[in-house]
Amino acid sequence: MPVYKAPLRDMKFLLNEVFDYPAHYASLACGEQATPDIVEAILNECARFCEEVLSPLYQPGDREGCRLDNGEVTTPRGFRDAYRQYVQGGWQGLSAPEAYGGQGLPASMGLFKQEMMGTANWPFSMYPGLSLGAMNTLYLHGDDAQKQIYLVPLTEGRWAGTMCLTEPQCGTDLGQVKTRAEPQADGSYRLTGTKMFISSGDHDLTENIIHIVLARLPDAPKGTKGISLFIVPKYLPDGQGAVGERNAVSCGSLEEKMGIKASATCVMNFDGATGFLIGPPNQGLECMFTFMNTARIGTAIQGVGPAELSYQWALAYARERRSMRALSGKKEPDQVADAIIHHADVRRMLLTQKAIAEGGRAMLYYAARLADHMVEGHTQGDADKVAKYDDKLGFLTPILKGFLTELGQEAAHLGMQVFGGHGYIREHGMEQIVRDTRIATLYEGTTGIQALDLLGRKVLLMTRGGAVREFTLKIANFARKQLTDPRLRPFALELLKLSGQWNLLTLRILLGARKDRDLVGAAAHDFLMYSGYVTMAYLWLRQATVAADRLDRGGDESEGFYRAKLATAEFYFERLLPRAQSHATSMLSPTRTLMQLAPEHMAFTD
Amino acid sequence: MPVYKAPLRDMKFLLNEVFDYPAHYASLACGEQATPDIVEAILNECARFCEEVLSPLYQPGDREGCRLDNGEVTTPRGFRDAYRQYVQGGWQGLSAPEAYGGQGLPASMGLFKQEMMGTANWPFSMYPGLSLGAMNTLYLHGDDAQKQIYLVPLTEGRWAGTMCLTEPQCGTDLGQVKTRAEPQADGSYRLTGTKMFISSGDHDLTENIIHIVLARLPDAPKGTKGISLFIVPKYLPDGQGAVGERNAVSCGSLEEKMGIKASATCVMNFDGATGFLIGPPNQGLECMFTFMNTARIGTAIQGVGPAELSYQWALAYARERRSMRALSGKKEPDQVADAIIHHADVRRMLLTQKAIAEGGRAMLYYAARLADHMVEGHTQGDADKVAKYDDKLGFLTPILKGFLTELGQEAAHLGMQVFGGHGYIREHGMEQIVRDTRIATLYEGTTGIQALDLLGRKVLLMTRGGAVREFTLKIANFARKQLTDPRLRPFALELLKLSGQWNLLTLRILLGARKDRDLVGAAAHDFLMYSGYVTMAYLWLRQATVAADRLDRGGDESEGFYRAKLATAEFYFERLLPRAQSHATSMLSPTRTLMQLAPEHMAFTD
Repeated sequence: MPVYKAPLRDMKFLLNEVFDYPAHYASLACGEQATPDIVEAILNECARFCEEVLSPLYQPGDREGCRLDNGEVTTPRGFRDAYRQYVQGGWQGLSAPEAYGGQGLPASMGLFKQEMMGTANWPFSMYPGLSLGAMNTLYLHGDDAQKQIYLVPLTEGRWAGTMCLTEPQCGTDLGQVKTRAEPQADGSYRLTGTKMFISSGDHDLTENIIHIVLARLPDAPKGTKGISLFIVPKYLPDGQGAVGERNAVSCGSLEEKMGIKASATCVMNFDGATGFLIGPPNQGLECMFTFMNTARIGTAIQGVGPAELSYQWALAYARERRSMRALSGKKEPDQVADAIIHHADVRRMLLTQKAIAEGGRAMLYYAARLADHMVEGHTQGDADKVAKYDDKLGFLTPILKGFLTELGQEAAHLGMQVFGGHGYIREHGMEQIVRDTRIATLYEGTTGIQALDLLGRKVLLMTRGGAVREFTLKIANFARKQLTDPRLRPFALELLKLSGQWNLLTLRILLGARKDRDLVGAAAHDFLMYSGYVTMAYLWLRQATVAADRLDRGGDESEGFYRAKLATAEFYFERLLPRAQSHATSMLSPTRTLMQLAPEHMAFTD
Repeated sequence: MPVYKAPLRDMKFLLNEVFDYPAHYASLACGEQATPDIVEAILNECARFCEEVLSPLYQPGDREGCRLDNGEVTTPRGFRDAYRQYVQGGWQGLSAPEAYGGQGLPASMGLFKQEMMGTANWPFSMYPGLSLGAMNTLYLHGDDAQKQIYLVPLTEGRWAGTMCLTEPQCGTDLGQVKTRAEPQADGSYRLTGTKMFISSGDHDLTENIIHIVLARLPDAPKGTKGISLFIVPKYLPDGQGAVGERNAVSCGSLEEKMGIKASATCVMNFDGATGFLIGPPNQGLECMFTFMNTARIGTAIQGVGPAELSYQWALAYARERRSMRALSGKKEPDQVADAIIHHADVRRMLLTQKAIAEGGRAMLYYAARLADHMVEGHTQGDADKVAKYDDKLGFLTPILKGFLTELGQEAAHLGMQVFGGHGYIREHGMEQIVRDTRIATLYEGTTGIQALDLLGRKVLLMTRGGAVREFTLKIANFARKQLTDPRLRPFALELLKLSGQWNLLTLRILLGARKDRDLVGAAAHDFLMYSGYVTMAYLWLRQATVAADRLDRGGDESEGFYRAKLATAEFYFERLLPRAQSHATSMLSPTRTLMQLAPEHMAFTD
């Protein structure tokens, strides 16, 4: 069975060499504890937990799946014990405020942890991951009593949380939510309705589960402006910090899914369940979306994780499996055939995976610094700081989530492809990565929704192109400085060209959309993918710049590592980045090509 | 449960309007029976069988899968009855020679049948599909006695066949085959060895199974020149046309796969099994490859089928599911929200599926005419004709198989994506299409192997670019004629440009490969995909040309159909064809980008 090895060398390269996290942490109020030694110790310990505890449960969890008996969900064998270790390690509270039992470390460290956990065992990582969503919502919108009652056990990991948004008739379009909340004399509410696709809706990992639920008050306006947010605990807290009476919320069924089978995806029935309002009435959606950017960065990890995992396993296979001879002559003359890693096309697949995994990780680490600043803004009650970094993150988030989850799927497919027919067989694990990853472009907003969020909201509506101007200015300034180094010059030139083109494309859409409102929807997907390729190119140049510098200094035992960075950057610029141009061409093609065909003319059976 | 509706309108458009099959059949010796009325009746009857019998078994077959008990494989419920109807309908012998009990119709009709069967229920269609491979091999290389004994019951469908090539240590690299064949005093052989990934290796559909097996004679030279071909029946024929003694070949286990679960993929153990040599000793691989091109066109169907099926289901869903409002204003003001078919990005996905399904089908129908001529050459013993059409088909086959199966996967993924989160749930069937389709780029030669076959063998080695020159000349001549029609002119101009570019790219690789032998492998994948996009563009122009002409004539009740053809052609040229340019750029990038990194520098764990 293949295993996961945390890419600590690459993580430390990004942390210490590319993004100078030591200085960044030193600048944060909450960064005092996050000294380089502490950070390294935490990452090493997290790597050990992921490699030794979570990774071995990845394939068995898929095989066994979750079970629903008498309304109670059982997770696969081993999950309870792994979760117990997770709680004992204090991992759930790593980046949570000390006031509620957390360790108060920077938010970015939570993301580094999540990447390792999600790569070793994505379905497992969803249980604590969903809890984080609930914790964030409570932290920002709960009152003091609610925080004391719920946030403390959630931070300890004794309790878990969920986010209950989707209903059978609506996912993206939450204005259609029907679940009702009737006020009671004691100030509580009774919730009635059905939620679906609720990850971690029920399970046996914790003694209680706190559902954060979108529902309508009796007098609520129609649509999105009439939705409120409620806490609905599985067991009502007894007021002493322990669990009391069972609430009228239950798992009606488990979805049978393509993948992430070890993650319980529940239909949740609320049958007059007791709930408590969080935040102001009818402003539930706004409250819900406060932390959407961070949640979506969490999902972007599911682009990087599968690329990394599938690459590790495909690389090991490509070094062992022997087939045919290399076109340029025998590489292993004593063997019956050459290892397939010597074939150019196998290398194309492996390097694509590597470029996606490492390029994507760099994008995450880049965004994680911004997340630290935004969270600090929240902690300090500094609305300006929150707004500033929320804007920066808000621009990057749909790119990270939309683009990286699409490329993660490509990487997972290529990993299967390296295995040939063996990739299709369950025991090798490659097809599981593909199945598990397939959800990533669907949940937390499909790729289409990310594309509209990016182009329609963040770029056009909110900033009239300003977000692109600001980001490309940063890119261009950085690229310009690298023009003097002959190794980096071709990359820098390409990036300068793309920075200009990105603005031009934005402008053309901005102007075109005035006359043709469909243009935004018609261009959005290509714009998203284009933005992703350029952003990843920027992060590859940043990595290449550091690698070139380290090689110049010489005498480093990591010389091979830096050479590999330069080679992978070159591969990215030469072989993947050209795709940006096909997106540039497609996005400007007339909307007519998408909109002219009447729905009834889309198919003719006879 | 979604159902399959055979796209008869589109099939008849290609048959009668684009490729003039009536005239083509009239020109064939075996085409006498294939009058337009007969062809239409056969297609309609096949459509009925696929829609009513095969399609309802598609999802249940996936759920139930195959079972192995005491060495005997049981197919899912309903498969036996469906197969009985298939045999009764005489479908297996549709294109088989009358001399052996077939109907003697043109080979192309077999492909049209296979497309419908494969779209309605790919896993089911593999059982008779594999038999066709065995039948073709026997027809071309068996002696008269072998043909009488085996070919007749195979043609009737009473018996089934398999192709036993792959072994645990080798798939592509068949020179590594180890299975041994010991000659016996009676002229038979005893075969010993293990074969894996044997589709239809055992099942309960027929009274006998005829394995065509690659094995080595005791004195055989090493490598590919020491492999011979054998018939190994599950039950030895009794000489009276019935089955006799059980042979020492058995299914050791069933592979647990990502998809095509209703198709039995067997490990086959040959324990001194009785076999009979077919064709000359040590020339087994050549015999095996004779019909490789037609077999691979059969697999290319698995690119078109899933695109069609996934499109049908996604289209139905997109018309029903309501979410948000169209950007250009409400389309269904009386409804709670607009159907998602009104969103540009959903249309992008649907039209991509449609363009792939219909463009791919046109590529199949185009190649099927060539297959008819090649088969006629075999029937007439006309080696020149065989060689001529084998060359033409040999060039197109890797493009069809490699390119269409890659695009079929994209189409299947987009169908899931249209369903949003619901696409991930098993009951909707969309994820099954993705899982079933995933095998298509792996078996019958991976995409990488198709790419090497195309660029390395067919284009460079065998014709020094001549194959591209010949095909692009045809394209350019056709395109030039369409320049006067303003609706077709932009497409024609683009195709003319691409025809020139395709030759130029070929020439640059031809010259470059003299100095750098890795260039062929490094460029192959991009060359294949580029070739596919240009070929599909040619077939879209051919369809658009007919549609424009029909619209000019006017008064046709199919006006909507022809307008949809033009609109889909426009979509293809504007939104999908630009990808060819990113492949053109990537394929000429230096081989260094793929080859420079030492295998041991591909990953650094710490």
